[in-house]
Formats: sequence, structure tokens, C-alpha cells
Amino acid sequence: MSLRPRITHATRPLTFEVEALNERGEVLPTPIAGEHPLTLYVDKREIVTLMTLGQAPEALAIGYLRNQRLVQSIDQIAEVQVDWETDAVAVTTRTAIEGLDARMEKRTVTTGCGQGTVFGDLMEEVDSIRLREDVKLEEETLYDLLDAVRRHETIYKSAGAVHGCALANGADILYFVEDVGRHNAVDAIAGQMWLDNVDGSDKIFYTTGRLTSEMVIKAAQMGIPFLVSRSGLTHMGYQIASRVGITMIGRAVNKHYLLFTGRQRFVKSVSPTMLA
Amino acid sequence: MSLRPRITHATRPLTFEVEALNERGEVLPTPIAGEHPLTLYVDKREIVTLMTLGQAPEALAIGYLRNQRLVQSIDQIAEVQVDWETDAVAVTTRTAIEGLDARMEKRTVTTGCGQGTVFGDLMEEVDSIRLREDVKLEEETLYDLLDAVRRHETIYKSAGAVHGCALANGADILYFVEDVGRHNAVDAIAGQMWLDNVDGSDKIFYTTGRLTSEMVIKAAQMGIPFLVSRSGLTHMGYQIASRVGITMIGRAVNKHYLLFTGRQRFVKSVSPTMLA
Repeated sequence: MSLRPRITHATRPLTFEVEALNERGEVLPTPIAGEHPLTLYVDKREIVTLMTLGQAPEALAIGYLRNQRLVQSIDQIAEVQVDWETDAVAVTTRTAIEGLDARMEKRTVTTGCGQGTVFGDLMEEVDSIRLREDVKLEEETLYDLLDAVRRHETIYKSAGAVHGCALANGADILYFVEDVGRHNAVDAIAGQMWLDNVDGSDKIFYTTGRLTSEMVIKAAQMGIPFLVSRSGLTHMGYQIASRVGITMIGRAVNKHYLLFTGRQRFVKSVSPTMLA
Repeated sequence: MSLRPRITHATRPLTFEVEALNERGEVLPTPIAGEHPLTLYVDKREIVTLMTLGQAPEALAIGYLRNQRLVQSIDQIAEVQVDWETDAVAVTTRTAIEGLDARMEKRTVTTGCGQGTVFGDLMEEVDSIRLREDVKLEEETLYDLLDAVRRHETIYKSAGAVHGCALANGADILYFVEDVGRHNAVDAIAGQMWLDNVDGSDKIFYTTGRLTSEMVIKAAQMGIPFLVSRSGLTHMGYQIASRVGITMIGRAVNKHYLLFTGRQRFVKSVSPTMLA
């Protein structure tokens, strides 16, 4: 008997075309990114409304429940049904989540591009995370990955207004998800990893978004030792990354990067003169 | 008797310096943006934890309550006390907010870089908004504003990882607030407008962030007829902007822009040939 949940595959149209008037007085058809409300129900209880691009709504729902620590394993989920007529995703569990009502009431909404999380609880959990130390990232592999990301066809390139995340094995992109919120893209990847039984402990997590506290916590929770961003970071993102010992690289574009934390896993393999 | 609330002025250090290793093997001192949890209490009831840069925490707390429709007027607020020892902001009202407990329980967390809002309620409210039609934005004023924004000294320029918002009167920047979350920056401006009794009905709202549904709703709620962004927009942002008739301009950088909605308030004043 398989414990993989039954799921729909209800991707939405990702871009729409509207007219815009530019500075030359021209009316141009302009592609823009989709944004849809998706209300998540677990065993008929309303949990959250996510505003999403709709690229991977089932994985998003699963990953949201994973990253919010509402379910502990994919085996707990029997079914994920997305219905865009009602903008709803219904998750059915195999056995009811213990104390869900109490946990929903106690929840503090954490923001700053955040989702509803109990921040204190998450910080406690961060201290219990042990990331693998027997894995390395070579500088050349980083450059190859950045090149693979650059060549990847994206909604961002056509319509902008989305953030992208990738899970990579070396320079190979396993998943690439975009969404209107940074956190939705991360959650969708977390959900897909569970669906495909992919272990994060030797993988690289790439994001176009900023490395804020919640982003670092989520990567660490997934057991991923390498976190790479095209953007910058915040002080709290830095503090948490230092504490959990994740190898965190910011401002990673083309042949440039800034390695902030977890230097022990990084192998400088390209000599500086080769970059000239 | 003045009904202006008593407030602290507890700005946090906005940038921190950490070491980073770059691709040339150099260890560089690198400024990064601050990020602090700030838990909002209203009459001793916990409402939300905001992750913030900490530039304008009192205005942020007030603007959050304003944009979440938890208070209807600045007169309701007697005191706003930020205490960074406990990462808390305590708001005291003149008369208790009616049904606060019930409203907090009913709240749906809306995300996608969102905050806790009751989305359905907000959409209903959007339909009751009437933005002024007797105000115009000249193309030349737009260019002057974009130039003023470009020249403005920002945390973004030094440390990145923040979003900026401005309220402008023509090309004059009245407020410029940055924060780690797009929504915090908007909320801080909404709070400062209340504190200074500034009317939004003839102003321009500028943001570096994307024009998602919540961003458009917040601008409209503040009665602001002009919304300008350096970034793109989402389909739902576009739909709401069309419905409320706001003049919305995206991709606005230097002498470029895309005017999406509310063309009736825009005056094209620079001839195309002058741009060559």
C-alpha cells in the first residue's frame, strides 16, 4: 500500500496579457503574472488564504503544512484536492491533526513578507537542527548552478512580479517554482520534496528573494546545508544562519557572490585570476 | 485638548556590518539591513508579530491597525510605546476596540507577502471607495518624482534587502520609509499620515515593490489616486486597480513607465521626441 497522497494537478494560467501605455505613447500588450487567492482547508477546517501564482497549488498546500509544522510527515496526508471554482484546496488527513484548533488559536501572525508562524517555537526548533557537515559546495559548481538558473525559462523573465526558488543537486535544477510570494515558492518546493521523497541534506536551495529570518529558518528546517540567493540578507537572517551553521551565499549573480556563513562547506576552486 | 497620541521615538540601528568572503577571496565588511521582531499589543491583547527594519516602529503599529481596519481614526489611539528590550509595541486606546477578540478569532491569514487580513471584507470595502477625479498627474511630474526617489539616500543602496515606499505631493517626497517587508513600509506611511493629519486624496504613492492585490487595496483604502512602482504587477493587482479606478503605473524607472489603469488622471506632457 502506497502512502503517497492522491492529488489533483490544477495549475492555473500563469500569465495574462493586459494593455499598457508607455512613455512613447504606444499601447503595448503586456504579460503580467497571475495572482489567485487559495484558501487551505484541513479536514474541513479553514487554515489560511494564500495569494498564489498557482503553478503548483497541491505542493504549495503540502509544503505550507510542512513548514508550519502542522503535519510531521507526508504519510499523514491522504488527499489534496484543488478546486479553482471555489479557490479552495482541501487537504484530508489519514488521522486528524492533534490539537489543530488549539494551535490555530494560539498562532501569532508573523509578517514582513511572512506567513502565520509561531516565531518563538521556530527559533527553539532551529537549535535542534543539525545540518550535514560531510558535504561540500565547490565554487565552480556554484557558478554552473547560477548559469543554469540564468538559462531557465521563467515567468519572471516574461512578466516579472514573482519570486523564484530552486532545489538543486550540484548544478542540476531538480525543481524550479515561482510565486507571487517568496514564501509560497519555498513552501511549494518543500511540498514537492515530500511528494517525491527527496532528501534535502546534500542539496542546494536557491532563491531570487532576500534572505530574511524566515527564509533561513525554512531552509534549515528542510535540512538543506546550502542556501544561495541573488539578493541580500537581513541581520536576523545572518544571525540565524550563523547559529544553525548553514552555508549561506548572497548576491550570487554570474561570477559574483558573497559567502556569509558556513565557510567550512565551501571549496574555492576557481583561482581569482581566471575571473579577470 | 489634543487627540494626538503620545508616542515613543524608538528607531533601531538600521544597518549592521558583517564579514563576507567574495569571489576574489577577499574578506569584506558588508552592511546588511536590520530585522527585528516587534510584537504588537492593543490594550494588552497580542495582535501580531511584525518583522521590521525598525525605522518607524510607532508609525508602523498605527498604520498596521489602520490598514487592518482595527481602528477607524487616530483619535482612538491614546498612546504608542515601543520597548526594544521586550521587542514589543503597546498601543493603548481611548475606548476599547469593540469586538476585538471576535475579530481576531475570525481572522484569516492572507499571505503571498501578506499580512493577516480578511480578504473578502477588504474586497467589499474596495467597492465603496471613491478616489478623487479632479486631480491630475503630469508626465513631467512623474519623471521629477522618479528622479527625486533615485537621489534619495536609502538603506537599500547601502545594504539592500529592503523595500521602500514614499508618499509624494507632486515631485516632493513627504515621507520615505523602508522595511524588510513591503507591507510594513506601506503601513508605516499610513500611520505617519494619520499622525500628521495628512490627506492622501491628491498624493502619489510610490513603492519599489510589486503591485500585488494587497498593495493596490491599501493605496485605495488610503484614498490615494496615484500608485507608482519601480516593479511589475500581478493580474489581481490589475483587476482591483481597474475596479477602483486608481491611476496605476508600473516599471517606472528614469524616463520609462507603463501606465496600466486610470489613464484619465494622467497628462502626457513630454513629447516622445524629447526622450530620444
